[in-house]
Amino acid sequence: MDAIARLLRPRSIAVVGASADATKTAGRPIAYLQKHGFAGEIYPVNPRSGSIGALKCYPDVAALPVSPDVGIVLLGAERASQAVRALAERGTAAAIVVASGFGEAGPDGGRLEGELKAAAGAMRLLGPNTIGLVNLTDKIMLAASGALEMDALPAGRIAVVSQSGGILGSLLSRAAGRGIGFSKLVSTGNEADLGAADFIAHLADDEATAVIALYVEGVRQPERFRAAAEAASRSGKPLVVFKVGRSEAGRRSALSHTGALAGTDRMYEALFNQVGAIRVATFAELLEVPAALAAGRAMQGRRVAILTSSGGAGTLIADCCGLAGFETPPPDAATAERLRPLLASGEAAMDRNPVDLTLAGAKPEILHAALGALLESASYDAVIAVAGSSALARPGPVADAISDRMRGGVKPLLAYVSPYAPHIVRLLNERGVPAFDAPESCAAALSALARPSRAERRARADFTAARPANSAPALTSLPGPLDEAEARRLFAAFGIPSVREIEIDTPAEAEPAARELGGRVVLKIRSRRIAHKTEVGGVAIGVAVEDAARRCEEMRGAVKAKTGFEPEGFLAQELVVNGVELILGFARDPQLGPAVLLGMGGVTTELLDDAAIRLLPIDRQDAQEMIDELRSAALLKGFRGRPRADATALAAAIVAFADMISGFGERLVEAEINPLLVLPEGEGVRAADGVLVVR
Amino acid sequence: MDAIARLLRPRSIAVVGASADATKTAGRPIAYLQKHGFAGEIYPVNPRSGSIGALKCYPDVAALPVSPDVGIVLLGAERASQAVRALAERGTAAAIVVASGFGEAGPDGGRLEGELKAAAGAMRLLGPNTIGLVNLTDKIMLAASGALEMDALPAGRIAVVSQSGGILGSLLSRAAGRGIGFSKLVSTGNEADLGAADFIAHLADDEATAVIALYVEGVRQPERFRAAAEAASRSGKPLVVFKVGRSEAGRRSALSHTGALAGTDRMYEALFNQVGAIRVATFAELLEVPAALAAGRAMQGRRVAILTSSGGAGTLIADCCGLAGFETPPPDAATAERLRPLLASGEAAMDRNPVDLTLAGAKPEILHAALGALLESASYDAVIAVAGSSALARPGPVADAISDRMRGGVKPLLAYVSPYAPHIVRLLNERGVPAFDAPESCAAALSALARPSRAERRARADFTAARPANSAPALTSLPGPLDEAEARRLFAAFGIPSVREIEIDTPAEAEPAARELGGRVVLKIRSRRIAHKTEVGGVAIGVAVEDAARRCEEMRGAVKAKTGFEPEGFLAQELVVNGVELILGFARDPQLGPAVLLGMGGVTTELLDDAAIRLLPIDRQDAQEMIDELRSAALLKGFRGRPRADATALAAAIVAFADMISGFGERLVEAEINPLLVLPEGEGVRAADGVLVVR
Repeated sequence: MDAIARLLRPRSIAVVGASADATKTAGRPIAYLQKHGFAGEIYPVNPRSGSIGALKCYPDVAALPVSPDVGIVLLGAERASQAVRALAERGTAAAIVVASGFGEAGPDGGRLEGELKAAAGAMRLLGPNTIGLVNLTDKIMLAASGALEMDALPAGRIAVVSQSGGILGSLLSRAAGRGIGFSKLVSTGNEADLGAADFIAHLADDEATAVIALYVEGVRQPERFRAAAEAASRSGKPLVVFKVGRSEAGRRSALSHTGALAGTDRMYEALFNQVGAIRVATFAELLEVPAALAAGRAMQGRRVAILTSSGGAGTLIADCCGLAGFETPPPDAATAERLRPLLASGEAAMDRNPVDLTLAGAKPEILHAALGALLESASYDAVIAVAGSSALARPGPVADAISDRMRGGVKPLLAYVSPYAPHIVRLLNERGVPAFDAPESCAAALSALARPSRAERRARADFTAARPANSAPALTSLPGPLDEAEARRLFAAFGIPSVREIEIDTPAEAEPAARELGGRVVLKIRSRRIAHKTEVGGVAIGVAVEDAARRCEEMRGAVKAKTGFEPEGFLAQELVVNGVELILGFARDPQLGPAVLLGMGGVTTELLDDAAIRLLPIDRQDAQEMIDELRSAALLKGFRGRPRADATALAAAIVAFADMISGFGERLVEAEINPLLVLPEGEGVRAADGVLVVR
Repeated sequence: MDAIARLLRPRSIAVVGASADATKTAGRPIAYLQKHGFAGEIYPVNPRSGSIGALKCYPDVAALPVSPDVGIVLLGAERASQAVRALAERGTAAAIVVASGFGEAGPDGGRLEGELKAAAGAMRLLGPNTIGLVNLTDKIMLAASGALEMDALPAGRIAVVSQSGGILGSLLSRAAGRGIGFSKLVSTGNEADLGAADFIAHLADDEATAVIALYVEGVRQPERFRAAAEAASRSGKPLVVFKVGRSEAGRRSALSHTGALAGTDRMYEALFNQVGAIRVATFAELLEVPAALAAGRAMQGRRVAILTSSGGAGTLIADCCGLAGFETPPPDAATAERLRPLLASGEAAMDRNPVDLTLAGAKPEILHAALGALLESASYDAVIAVAGSSALARPGPVADAISDRMRGGVKPLLAYVSPYAPHIVRLLNERGVPAFDAPESCAAALSALARPSRAERRARADFTAARPANSAPALTSLPGPLDEAEARRLFAAFGIPSVREIEIDTPAEAEPAARELGGRVVLKIRSRRIAHKTEVGGVAIGVAVEDAARRCEEMRGAVKAKTGFEPEGFLAQELVVNGVELILGFARDPQLGPAVLLGMGGVTTELLDDAAIRLLPIDRQDAQEMIDELRSAALLKGFRGRPRADATALAAAIVAFADMISGFGERLVEAEINPLLVLPEGEGVRAADGVLVVR
């Protein structure tokens, strides 16, 4: 057994700093271990007590009769290191340090945290600043959370990994209130050693766990997190994530346009997307969506039947499902035939969905028969049963009728409870029917059930193109911004061609250059000092041959007046008129690392915030998904009679750009192609302008 | 007393079709009236019973000893008309018809509904297909809702108007569960006579009501609704709306671009916006936001203090508040001084918000003192108190400490309950502290409290410009689409100038026309048959004088080939290069009537869905709000060094366009200016293309 396995399922536990007073935090762990029936050995350690209840108390860790699997340390931040060192010396598998006052409290605490980690040596460490962990599969409560005061904590198939101990307690309490059971819950605290990723990876192999719910403030080790999430995905265990820190300013001010599009939350969005995690929008959904997934049924299409005894509640559920992109078609003829004898309200109700049983919906046998007809209908991929106020009078039989239909079936069956009836919600969840009291959560759960896994999505995609062979990066030795021409030579080395262009030094050279480029051209200043040329009058579009020299002079004057800098020269480019303008950019999150960004081009990019982001590394399918994710993707697909754009070449360019980013590694400060012109199918892409800053 | 007042507060009630069996729908109203202590007279009408309980039963309405204020009719759809006629003949103020099977059931039911309305004559009618109404102010339950089985229905200051009876029951039950009280609840059903607007107007004057919550499927009489909502606004009573039917396809296919942008839900959004209603996004918020508003405190700024005993829950609330646009600044020095003796966690916690009391937060005197410090601090506009799991042990004293701080203060004070603790939520709400168990609802409530009323918004706005005098519509007698030139002459008549242009008949006239317009021009075909000229090759931009004739020939060929139609002529327009392209359009909702729409121009309009809509009539401030509402509004405000656009002229053009729409009335089928070019400040706007279809 590895250390994490011993941590989650210890046979012996040392409680260092244990108190005999169960109302104090230091008294709770032993009280909770005993209350919930821990069958292993508990060794309290406290020099000032002889015993705690029936348990002998030891003066220090060295005095323990055995080497415990786990030590839970309840001492303050100043004294915790000493206990941790003693536990490590005894060969303990893992220590849990509850105290706060470490890294989260400032530089002094950070120093203490460093000492703590050093004291642990090879022993694994949970915390500090953790509430501990709860293993409901095996009834082992290694936590100080007041939520463990509850008597009945249902075990189930959902594991929780939380970076906040208070939230772990809140989830534990809320789940018990709703009849939702957990397998394991871990609060990772400051993650001085063990982090969320370690537990996700472990739970991916835990037989008692079917779904992993993650409450996260920030991902500290993105590579480990990605690997762990992919392990969970391979094990067929959905990872459901709620993230706080969504409201951080998080928008980097940067030289490139890209920076403004790549807020911290968007980077996390990309991360969760890429590992196939299901991100929920509300705190309630962090419980309710896993509960729906734990039933183990996937929705194979988008058609949902709603069976109700309350017309209003049925309409409300239908509306929420519709907003989430589901269809509610009326029953087909065969299904209608089965429903006919059950409906009091006559023929008019036969062609409707929601199917309204009105008052008869309170009769369990009618409810049971109608659910059968809908679950077995070829017209539906899932069924939602709505319990109206008529269910209040006989919650047991109604819950029985619904839960009996969970047996043997394969389609998702959910329940929505319309009146205030927490006991009905609890009863249904306990019997394995995912039950909701918020219509929006019900629709969110359905969305999670209808979502193909990442593995399925990749299997469905039709990609034959291999990754393009990429040249080694033609690294310039020069730190700082490259000028346009240099940047585009570099892009070309990675397989992204540029528009035809001629570098010139003086305005007088502009006219012959324009003639050579075929007439009307784009003129730009060249400068290492000016990133946004348009804003300072350094770009002229569609200039005729005879005007070229004069426009160069004008630009020089305008730029000098606005910036104080003299342009280093000029660039004449062919005018491409049949391309769609995109931005291809780079962003680096301090936690999550480098990412590639695709956005719509032109000045509207930032205004309209239409961008797709992926963390590196990416492959062709990621690139294709980025293209499809843009709201403006329609512009590439033959919008309003225009030719279809070359999406294949665009996907290849995205991957090539990502390769270039990887090639530069930490040296890369800014990189952006803006605009990247995507030509009609078969004609490829062209970089028309670019920024590249290397340090 | 008018009929609605008598309906809501009757002294005598006839119950037609009453049953002695309280488990049947027809037995419920009398049972509920008696159970909840109705003090007036009840007259059961049923030819087959001599008495119902202690009440004498009458064979028919004619036999009643008095003329009742209200008759509630429990007969089926076929027999209801007769009872309604009899009630009307007795001079009853209003009848409530519970049966379904009317308009909602199809054409036969529609006929029955017509008969019902005719039978009522001058008597007012609630329903049919209504669950009835509940007056908790005066303990009068005129409803068949099973939710009235509950013993304790708290009275309060929130009124509910619901188009669904089932939802009324659900709200009644959920509110009681949360300790939220109502004044009156009305289910308006099919609204054959009395509709939601009538009750909103009445409740605007109801002393017992401070907030009106509306559950709506569709607004049947938009003018009455607007008038009623404005009456509520004048009385200082917020109107909180939840609308279903949001997921309807609802996108009209139309000749103009505008149609695609004006979905049904967007029209409702505009309606709610214009009347100053607060639209909530989730069903739970339809209860929770009114409960927060009923406390009667407005938030004067955006700064919120969060006081917590659970770090995790505090962070979660701070994140939700941040997402909703609130700030959580740390305490100022004076506030920190007051908090210092209360915080166990030392100096590090002093400069933080959420303010974390940790375990001391369970001590009522510390909680009370800390709340006082934050509520009285000049740094905060509202305070959220978070109850962690430590509150579970002593809910009463914690609730007392919080609710005591509601006395005497003026700033909003809300509570968030982190563990599963419905009793704490109930206790707090009962004591007047708006309490939440969803962090998102807590933030939504804060948003509602921070929202200036429509009256305040209008008072703050700085508008001196009067409505422009508008010419009478130069109505063309010709039905069908106008050609471009005709459309723009019409726009000009309403004060919206067009770009300079010359109508020509043949390609040969193009060159001199282009020369007269100053060189480079836009060339377009003229055609009554083709609305979207760009898509068929009928537009050429930036054509040089010498190319003008040839391009006209090319366009003629391209258009003929694509559409089969020969253009009727051509138009040469000056090329405007310094304008921002917008769309100004018209849409008509079958229920809500005509609306004006403003969107970003160019092909990206539809893709990016950036549009502002207002129902007519509108004024200058509405126009200004439309401009500000666009995500792309920054383009008009000197984006990236461009000149500021002439927003004043744009607002005037929007109002002028709205006047034109009103002028045409029902005859107008399509109207759109696309693009409308907004020039730099002081230079006005120019219509560059337009569609107008009149019938």
